[in-house]
Amino acid sequence: MITGRLLGIGVGPGDPELITLKAVRYLQRAPVVAYISANGQRSIARRIAAPHLPSGKREINLALPMHPRPEITGAAYEEGAARISTELEQGRDVAVLCEGDPLLYGSFGHLFERLGDDYPTEIVPGVMSITAAAAAAKRPLVARTEVLTLVPATLASDALVSRLEHAEAGAILKLGRHLARVREVLVEMGRLEQAIYVEQVSTGQQKILPLTEVTEDVAPYFALVLLPRARGS
Amino acid sequence: MITGRLLGIGVGPGDPELITLKAVRYLQRAPVVAYISANGQRSIARRIAAPHLPSGKREINLALPMHPRPEITGAAYEEGAARISTELEQGRDVAVLCEGDPLLYGSFGHLFERLGDDYPTEIVPGVMSITAAAAAAKRPLVARTEVLTLVPATLASDALVSRLEHAEAGAILKLGRHLARVREVLVEMGRLEQAIYVEQVSTGQQKILPLTEVTEDVAPYFALVLLPRARGS
Repeated sequence: MITGRLLGIGVGPGDPELITLKAVRYLQRAPVVAYISANGQRSIARRIAAPHLPSGKREINLALPMHPRPEITGAAYEEGAARISTELEQGRDVAVLCEGDPLLYGSFGHLFERLGDDYPTEIVPGVMSITAAAAAAKRPLVARTEVLTLVPATLASDALVSRLEHAEAGAILKLGRHLARVREVLVEMGRLEQAIYVEQVSTGQQKILPLTEVTEDVAPYFALVLLPRARGS
Repeated sequence: MITGRLLGIGVGPGDPELITLKAVRYLQRAPVVAYISANGQRSIARRIAAPHLPSGKREINLALPMHPRPEITGAAYEEGAARISTELEQGRDVAVLCEGDPLLYGSFGHLFERLGDDYPTEIVPGVMSITAAAAAAKRPLVARTEVLTLVPATLASDALVSRLEHAEAGAILKLGRHLARVREVLVEMGRLEQAIYVEQVSTGQQKILPLTEVTEDVAPYFALVLLPRARGS
């Protein structure tokens, strides 16, 4: 029996219209869709894909405890991979819905690691939240010989400084409870004025403002800080 | 009289199906499209957008000398901005076609700099070549607390080393005549084995192979080297 294909589908940053034609085509055809719901919250990728999903598909909802220690999340990924594998063995393609792009800090990488050697795989790239944030803020990120560095806010402060200090532009992802510390790091680097806070980019709940105007010390997990190139440089 | 809007439209990395629904909608509606043809070569962005462009649109072809010195290209951007401005003043929206994403190393930034203060602007982000390359190579770029750094190959060798050395993953863009030197830098860093060479990603002419198997010393301008995260790390 021919197995199904594992499909990693980037659904983009939030606006269902920021999905690619190719992703829509795959979503319409795949008989099974899978997605992660972290800590019992509704899957963001499922919500983005919703207008493009015909009814009557089989759905695999992978509940995942969000935890920095891979040994905690690893068991959940193993179980999720096993559930997807069951469908693939029946010859059914499984489209894994991925917020943004499947290979950029996403959960898909962990599933692909467990299934990619055994099943034919296709990956459809998606618009990442960082360029969507720059588009919404109307600020070019990098030009000419400039460097762009993406760092997760979960890094230690000295690592944040050393990774960002030679980059003309940057993005600090997964802000969450690290917002206050990120602000301190940027003050120390003299780059607070450059920083733009972005939340729920491209959705109806989008928030974009200079980081200097954000008073909270905690942000949603998916909020980010953009450090675009200096104007006119 | 109400002016037209300046629209920066990301058309994605090459495959016309890797464009977003939003970009297609804007391309169908805008009465004028503008694009860059570098050094007299056909515009890549125009070719990607072609299947989505109804006939009968006004087209502005901006011939641009590709040159590292901004004072050479600056005059061409001034002239291009003036031509776009003429359309905007007539109340016509102008969609500027941008390969990949409009705000990531693109020409749109230079036009936006000259027009963005005077005309309403909207920017539609696009899939960038880097994540499309990772998707085609089926290699996750970054996970968890890892750092991703994008550098243009035009940087000096010591700058390439210092920008990349703390990043678990990277991409080296605009390879062109710098390919041989990039290879030397990666050997020096002990990262040659990690490197994947990618040309014309997501098109019928796509080339993907380990950099160790590339014998040429010169690559097309838009070729790139991907340094994905180590497998299983």
